[in-house]
Amino acid sequence: MTTPHARLSVNQATLKYASLPEALEITAAAGITSIGLWRDSVQAQSLPEAARLLALSGMRFSSLCRGGFFTVPEGAARRAAMDDNRRAIEEAATLAAAGAAGSVPVLVMVAGGLPEGSNDLAGARARVEDALTELAPEALAAGVTLALEPLHPMYASDRAVISTLKQALDLASPFPPAAVGVVIDTFHVWWDPDLPAQIVRAGAEGRIASYQVCDWRTPLAADVLLSRHYPGAGVIDFEAITGAVQTAGYAGDVEVEIFNQDIWDTAPAEVLARTIGSFDENIGAHLRTGIHR
Amino acid sequence: MTTPHARLSVNQATLKYASLPEALEITAAAGITSIGLWRDSVQAQSLPEAARLLALSGMRFSSLCRGGFFTVPEGAARRAAMDDNRRAIEEAATLAAAGAAGSVPVLVMVAGGLPEGSNDLAGARARVEDALTELAPEALAAGVTLALEPLHPMYASDRAVISTLKQALDLASPFPPAAVGVVIDTFHVWWDPDLPAQIVRAGAEGRIASYQVCDWRTPLAADVLLSRHYPGAGVIDFEAITGAVQTAGYAGDVEVEIFNQDIWDTAPAEVLARTIGSFDENIGAHLRTGIHR
Repeated sequence: MTTPHARLSVNQATLKYASLPEALEITAAAGITSIGLWRDSVQAQSLPEAARLLALSGMRFSSLCRGGFFTVPEGAARRAAMDDNRRAIEEAATLAAAGAAGSVPVLVMVAGGLPEGSNDLAGARARVEDALTELAPEALAAGVTLALEPLHPMYASDRAVISTLKQALDLASPFPPAAVGVVIDTFHVWWDPDLPAQIVRAGAEGRIASYQVCDWRTPLAADVLLSRHYPGAGVIDFEAITGAVQTAGYAGDVEVEIFNQDIWDTAPAEVLARTIGSFDENIGAHLRTGIHR
Repeated sequence: MTTPHARLSVNQATLKYASLPEALEITAAAGITSIGLWRDSVQAQSLPEAARLLALSGMRFSSLCRGGFFTVPEGAARRAAMDDNRRAIEEAATLAAAGAAGSVPVLVMVAGGLPEGSNDLAGARARVEDALTELAPEALAAGVTLALEPLHPMYASDRAVISTLKQALDLASPFPPAAVGVVIDTFHVWWDPDLPAQIVRAGAEGRIASYQVCDWRTPLAADVLLSRHYPGAGVIDFEAITGAVQTAGYAGDVEVEIFNQDIWDTAPAEVLARTIGSFDENIGAHLRTGIHR
């Protein structure tokens, strides 16, 4: 069996139906040394129990998905969202402390879409800015980086009003990089003519908190959320993007995050074998190893 | 019955199953004074016959869809694509001359996606540039404007490697505005944080050759090509975008272009009534009238 790349992290969403204990066990059993977790599976345990299981697994923690969803106007729903983000900050800090050396306190932030019935895109974006102003000092105090993830523009109305890496970096710019960074996810940004320049900028500003990979292929799945594929199964130039991210100074784990019903319906061991192989061929080949933070 | 807005043009794709004679007849019968045509329906007639029918209808001609699809590498397929674009230029010139006063010789250009098996996005984009260099002088000589249409990034791999208005304007910049302009289509660009600035730029550079409208709504149709809706049925802020396009100096026809199976399956007269009403409410209300070129 192939030894997994030293910088490969499996995002738990790739193993949709595995509980936290199962995901940790099968990922570690495959020789993978890092994992990105999702809040629902963490919350299915208590936070101390989730941290204990992670520590026992001996794996690094590469990110927690996800905070954000704070585009609603001021009021009870917004306060609830902010409180939920505070819990997410605490979870990320606890898990990063429990993971093996090289773990990072990264909380992935998905902005949220337009509030129901609204067409005020500028307003929704402004409320993301407001939310960061409120949360960034708390994240910094907790030692957690809020990692803004621009999502593909096809999700701009219902999931994330932050659509480009430039926009995420502009939003991050008032805050220290330790408090607010960005996620570069190939699926979301591969098409952007401004991507190479913004990756350089993200590196120069010390903002690259996470690099996530999966491939883009058409026709898109009927549910466009589930259109993510193994690296190499689509059209993304991983050599170019991975090279750019690395040249920009990113030396951390690289997460494979795949939402795809066919892959979710496949036996986890087979999914991990395919993940390890496709990562090696398409991303690992372009990464220097052994330069962990 | 409502009088259609003076600047409303119906793009023929909205009436998918109508032949050219049928589309001209039912659109004119509804009191609409301008139409955007598609090449397949023009070619189903001879070009002189299509021009004769258009002239007889008394309607303005607002654009021809579409040229482009020139991302393939040099070789027979590319030469065939270039020759096809030359025919499209001739068709646009002929139809614009046949239309009523206020017709414009605009050929909408969709770049084309990645060639089969390629992941070289930069290369495909460079070949768009090469194609323009070859075609722009011929378009200028024919009095036709090649109108580059940025398509939504969800079509970047299979349909158009030009994804943003900025990118289209950058590509147009070496050429005179009479030869190469841009199309602003709300569906494709509404999400772009850089849109307001690029509309200002497009106006200042005299590049806005066409303004097309339809709405964005989620969930997307299973075939994402068919996700276009009547203005007002989705989340696009037509007041903001229409205001910006108008402030930038665009005073031409505004095309409603909808690809939507449900709408295609509706009786054309009803589609036109809905088009007239939704245009009035969502776009017409924000347009000055009577300032045709």
